[in-house]
Amino acid sequence: MQRTDVTEMIMTAKIRKDIKWCDVAAQVGLSKEWVTAGCLGQMTFDARQAAIVGEVFGLPEEAVLLLQQVPYRGSLPTAVPTDPLIYRFYELVSVYGTTFKALIHEEFGDGIMSAIDFRMDMQREPDPAGDRVSITMSGKFLPYKTY
Amino acid sequence: MQRTDVTEMIMTAKIRKDIKWCDVAAQVGLSKEWVTAGCLGQMTFDARQAAIVGEVFGLPEEAVLLLQQVPYRGSLPTAVPTDPLIYRFYELVSVYGTTFKALIHEEFGDGIMSAIDFRMDMQREPDPAGDRVSITMSGKFLPYKTY
Amino acid sequence: MQRTDVTEMIMTAKIRKDIKWCDVAAQVGLSKEWVTAGCLGQMTFDARQAAIVGEVFGLPEEAVLLLQQVPYRGSLPTAVPTDPLIYRFYELVSVYGTTFKALIHEEFGDGIMSAIDFRMDMQREPDPAGDRVSITMSGKFLPYKTY
Amino acid sequence: MQRTDVTEMIMTAKIRKDIKWCDVAAQVGLSKEWVTAGCLGQMTFDARQAAIVGEVFGLPEEAVLLLQQVPYRGSLPTAVPTDPLIYRFYELVSVYGTTFKALIHEEFGDGIMSAIDFRMDMQREPDPAGDRVSITMSGKFLPYKTY
Amino acid sequence: MQRTDVTEMIMTAKIRKDIKWCDVAAQVGLSKEWVTAGCLGQMTFDARQAAIVGEVFGLPEEAVLLLQQVPYRGSLPTAVPTDPLIYRFYELVSVYGTTFKALIHEEFGDGIMSAIDFRMDMQREPDPAGDRVSITMSGKFLPYKTY
Amino acid sequence: MQRTDVTEMIMTAKIRKDIKWCDVAAQVGLSKEWVTAGCLGQMTFDARQAAIVGEVFGLPEEAVLLLQQVPYRGSLPTAVPTDPLIYRFYELVSVYGTTFKALIHEEFGDGIMSAIDFRMDMQREPDPAGDRVSITMSGKFLPYKTY
Amino acid sequence: MQRTDVTEMIMTAKIRKDIKWCDVAAQVGLSKEWVTAGCLGQMTFDARQAAIVGEVFGLPEEAVLLLQQVPYRGSLPTAVPTDPLIYRFYELVSVYGTTFKALIHEEFGDGIMSAIDFRMDMQREPDPAGDRVSITMSGKFLPYKTY
Amino acid sequence: MQRTDVTEMIMTAKIRKDIKWCDVAAQVGLSKEWVTAGCLGQMTFDARQAAIVGEVFGLPEEAVLLLQQVPYRGSLPTAVPTDPLIYRFYELVSVYGTTFKALIHEEFGDGIMSAIDFRMDMQREPDPAGDRVSITMSGKFLPYKTY
Amino acid sequence: MQRTDVTEMIMTAKIRKDIKWCDVAAQVGLSKEWVTAGCLGQMTFDARQAAIVGEVFGLPEEAVLLLQQVPYRGSLPTAVPTDPLIYRFYELVSVYGTTFKALIHEEFGDGIMSAIDFRMDMQREPDPAGDRVSITMSGKFLPYKTY
Amino acid sequence: MQRTDVTEMIMTAKIRKDIKWCDVAAQVGLSKEWVTAGCLGQMTFDARQAAIVGEVFGLPEEAVLLLQQVPYRGSLPTAVPTDPLIYRFYELVSVYGTTFKALIHEEFGDGIMSAIDFRMDMQREPDPAGDRVSITMSGKFLPYKTY
Repeated sequence: MQRTDVTEMIMTAKIRKDIKWCDVAAQVGLSKEWVTAGCLGQMTFDARQAAIVGEVFGLPEEAVLLLQQVPYRGSLPTAVPTDPLIYRFYELVSVYGTTFKALIHEEFGDGIMSAIDFRMDMQREPDPAGDRVSITMSGKFLPYKTY
Repeated sequence: MQRTDVTEMIMTAKIRKDIKWCDVAAQVGLSKEWVTAGCLGQMTFDARQAAIVGEVFGLPEEAVLLLQQVPYRGSLPTAVPTDPLIYRFYELVSVYGTTFKALIHEEFGDGIMSAIDFRMDMQREPDPAGDRVSITMSGKFLPYKTY
Repeated sequence: MQRTDVTEMIMTAKIRKDIKWCDVAAQVGLSKEWVTAGCLGQMTFDARQAAIVGEVFGLPEEAVLLLQQVPYRGSLPTAVPTDPLIYRFYELVSVYGTTFKALIHEEFGDGIMSAIDFRMDMQREPDPAGDRVSITMSGKFLPYKTY
Repeated sequence: MQRTDVTEMIMTAKIRKDIKWCDVAAQVGLSKEWVTAGCLGQMTFDARQAAIVGEVFGLPEEAVLLLQQVPYRGSLPTAVPTDPLIYRFYELVSVYGTTFKALIHEEFGDGIMSAIDFRMDMQREPDPAGDRVSITMSGKFLPYKTY
Repeated sequence: MQRTDVTEMIMTAKIRKDIKWCDVAAQVGLSKEWVTAGCLGQMTFDARQAAIVGEVFGLPEEAVLLLQQVPYRGSLPTAVPTDPLIYRFYELVSVYGTTFKALIHEEFGDGIMSAIDFRMDMQREPDPAGDRVSITMSGKFLPYKTY
Repeated sequence: MQRTDVTEMIMTAKIRKDIKWCDVAAQVGLSKEWVTAGCLGQMTFDARQAAIVGEVFGLPEEAVLLLQQVPYRGSLPTAVPTDPLIYRFYELVSVYGTTFKALIHEEFGDGIMSAIDFRMDMQREPDPAGDRVSITMSGKFLPYKTY
Repeated sequence: MQRTDVTEMIMTAKIRKDIKWCDVAAQVGLSKEWVTAGCLGQMTFDARQAAIVGEVFGLPEEAVLLLQQVPYRGSLPTAVPTDPLIYRFYELVSVYGTTFKALIHEEFGDGIMSAIDFRMDMQREPDPAGDRVSITMSGKFLPYKTY
Repeated sequence: MQRTDVTEMIMTAKIRKDIKWCDVAAQVGLSKEWVTAGCLGQMTFDARQAAIVGEVFGLPEEAVLLLQQVPYRGSLPTAVPTDPLIYRFYELVSVYGTTFKALIHEEFGDGIMSAIDFRMDMQREPDPAGDRVSITMSGKFLPYKTY
Repeated sequence: MQRTDVTEMIMTAKIRKDIKWCDVAAQVGLSKEWVTAGCLGQMTFDARQAAIVGEVFGLPEEAVLLLQQVPYRGSLPTAVPTDPLIYRFYELVSVYGTTFKALIHEEFGDGIMSAIDFRMDMQREPDPAGDRVSITMSGKFLPYKTY
Repeated sequence: MQRTDVTEMIMTAKIRKDIKWCDVAAQVGLSKEWVTAGCLGQMTFDARQAAIVGEVFGLPEEAVLLLQQVPYRGSLPTAVPTDPLIYRFYELVSVYGTTFKALIHEEFGDGIMSAIDFRMDMQREPDPAGDRVSITMSGKFLPYKTY
């Protein structure tokens, strides 16, 4: 059994039992963004969290152990994603990549936004012209240092 | 002369004259995110905006005309970016891509977040453990329709 | 079981029972284009539609549930398609891509044709020199906005 | 001088003289789709057509000769296009590719839609919910033959 | 069961029963080139032909049905073939590709040689310096048309 | 100056002087296929042949010397060709590759068709349903040997 | 069963029975280079040779038949090999490729070294500074011909 | 000026002055294989050697300095070479790669053949059936060590 | 059974039995870096070492034999790694690659750092600003030689 | 002028004036590793440092300004490096990548080694069996956090 098998078990159970990601998150006691990423094989649960996830989805013991292992990250089958929803985020990186770079360097100097010390929040933003997806990302600025 | 030549002229003038993106944006009267993307060859300026940008950076007339043409978008030289700052955003798509997809579908049903009817705001988020980069993205939800 | 397994079940049943896509579409009450794309794993059926598809092809209950899940889209095994019929469409994008771009921008200004708020119709066009395939695509124009 | 140089000359002249593709097409006496594709280096003009194009854009004699040569086709710099407008067409091939295949084979049997004996028409389709881009493609069906 | 499974069944039976492609072709009553391509999953058999192929190789009923379905074409595992025999043909396209283009355009004007309305014949050409492989290809010329 | 520069000189002169490949071949005294491939940078001319080619196209002395150097072969800018005419030949390799292999092995045993000891002839094949391109390839069979 | 399955059987048997490649070669009566390549799925055995290989490794009858089929050649899972030993040979092609070309053309004129009419010998070369791997390759020179 | 410019200068001078690689090697006092690789930008000359090479080809002083710099190695424009002569060596790696690995490990244990402590000799091998290219490679065996 | 199966067995046993890499290394009597690489399928164990590893992880006999075979090295599924931890090392090669080259050549002259005669040590480096990962690599310098 | 032009100027001046990286570093007052990376276009100098570098290499004023701009990082022309020295580091990532991951996770838990808050030291390690390259890397451990 590998972590990808656990992800598939979770997806199947989710469909069969009609479980919502936000409810799993509430039971785990963390954000829906982090918990969903974990269920999809991208984060490491601790023993207590893994036990809850295991119970919610009815996972076997070995799967619960695997949820506590650091996964080999990367959730997409191709370097350029084919799924339209995910591609739009890739497109934002392609179109706005140099803009991110220019503005962060102007504000902070040389360095990067951490993708590790990072949190994210996704909300529905009501709008009369059609509701919007609102995503707020917050990553620690890490300066390049001389040595 | 092509749009990429205009971008290089802007970058050179920016260094020589020590111009800040946020000041250009203030003069154009729009957000720093959109104006910077435009200066980097990813957005289309109207005549008034292009004239301001042309004056700020001291661009020749043909360059000002080119700023008003719709560009061939895509700001990066490779499909997987090599620059660490930009790569971190690619990494977020790679790690969180299926999470974006799962949560947006749970909240909105089948569809995507538009990368066209889209706006973005980048701010410094003060933090005692080290300031953070905060990026808020807002894109209209576009539902898939049956027909 | 994954959505690709459901697609394979549908294909096998289609051959065994000699089912026509246009008949499935008629039973579902939607266009043959959308229903076929759904059966091939690219669209999401609602409960009523999935039940009909499940009955037509004799699918197990779990498959009917999977038809109601948003799929990871992308129907082709390689970035450049090898199948001659599908390659011709890729060739049209390669040859006419900049023409699409030039004419849409001339008519509408900067923006894109939506591939989400989109519908398509495929018909046989009788022609004495050999019948023709006629495809009409209609996608909402989405303008880029300044902010 | 190569055909790509001619395309660049045409683009520069178009911006400087504010020429519209539909006006060039009217002068040439053919559809805007075919003429634009030709100006963008994808079609071969005959002597009369090339002379008109040359006059409209003020091209040198050698460029007018090059417009009459069969070009090496392919208008895009990467196999997966980065420009959002053109990518949406690539996405349609990716998502609907197997659907095109299934429906054409159901209607016509084994064969392809020609991308050579092909014509295309792009129109604005007024719609209260936002105007739409309407593209009609017509390609001769070419059956595979046994031998 | 998929078409690739049928191809593998055919290959196994061919080895076990020591069947020759030219004998299968004789029984089907068509050229060895077309019949072999069909057995290798690249062509569509009609009911009568499929029945013969099924009998020759001892295929199950479902395989015989699959032989009558239009396949997803493309017989090679990589874009650049690794097998030396097949690579030599790829090399000919690489080395002679622009020559094919130049000579066909000189003789016929702008257009292509059809790979659909196409037939091929492979023969042994006796030669005192070592026998030669002789391949004659014939494809309909399809002219590009203005519209 | 490199061989690719010589090819570009030849192409420009050909257009300006309206030279035909078959006429160049006649003057050189060899087939139009080999001579065209040579002019396009894929074959090595001897001193006499290079002198003739140089005179026909009005090449400078250094170019005539370069025509006598063995070139770095490969005439296409991408591994999968984008030009429709050349792509059709790539498609034939993709679709018929395993068929070439199967039939050549059946006839000759293990080995390959040489792409070096090779000749090719391209002819127009008149046909009431539309003229055809006929290409005859002849390559020496080279057997794999045990040792 | 496919040839790759036969290769895996051979590898497993080799480990279990502690068989040496040079001993297999001695029993077959050919060089260790050719026999090993054959056992690894790259060469075609005749009936007698296949029977010996089958006996040595304890292969089932179908595997012995498959050893007599011409394989789809190419022994590596990626275009650029990841295994350090094999990569060093790829590196030699990358670094010395143009040198091979320059020297062979200087000595022989235009043509290639055959990889089909080819033999290879690998020996240990004792050296006080550390023993060396000595590989001698011999391939027939095949001249390009005019026609 | 970069090393690739020096390589191009050498190639041009070689053609103009009709210089032979073996004569350059003789003047430098080293093997034709190493000297040619150096002239083609893959090896580092010392001051004396560079002066000789500079004199033979009539290089400017800066080029002679560049010959003494360690180059960024890799002589081929693509990962899979398109030139037939060089491709045959790539093909040998592809077909015989696992054989090299198997035989070297059988003889030496785990380790590699060095491509750095390496020498090569290329000779014409007269043969009544057609002369052969004989290449002898000798690389130090480097064992993997435990630690 | 293949070496990758052995790696998977080891990973599963490690999770189930909560084994630490450093404890395995202690039992084998070698560094944790080399032993872990071996357990992950990248190094060759001798009989004694393999027996210990087999006992620790409870491996079947055939797996213990496979641990003593030289593996096909390369531990990553893609050329550019997607896992953030491993990507950072790839990023170091991308950013510092030419620096490694410049400094090693300045210190040692032309040659490379061996990745075979190589050892590595990974330690925790306590730091009040956050502990650090410290990796020391030591590889024999191998000079390029003239011949 | 772009940063890559500055890098080329520096390389040319370095050769002409025979400057050593370690001497530049001493003048800048920082490590040779960081200063060399900066000169090769991968790090950002402050005004004082840039002035020193400019003086050492005799750079024009605009180049000195460019040294103070954050560069688009990535020093290699291909995703898999072709230069043997640099490839060996890529090979270490390929072979030891999962080992780095396993050991860092065992010691620190889930997180990464920073490539930004990072320093490196390269030394010659004398060894009677041949001197060694010793590289010590130190990167801050960044833990993944729940949120």
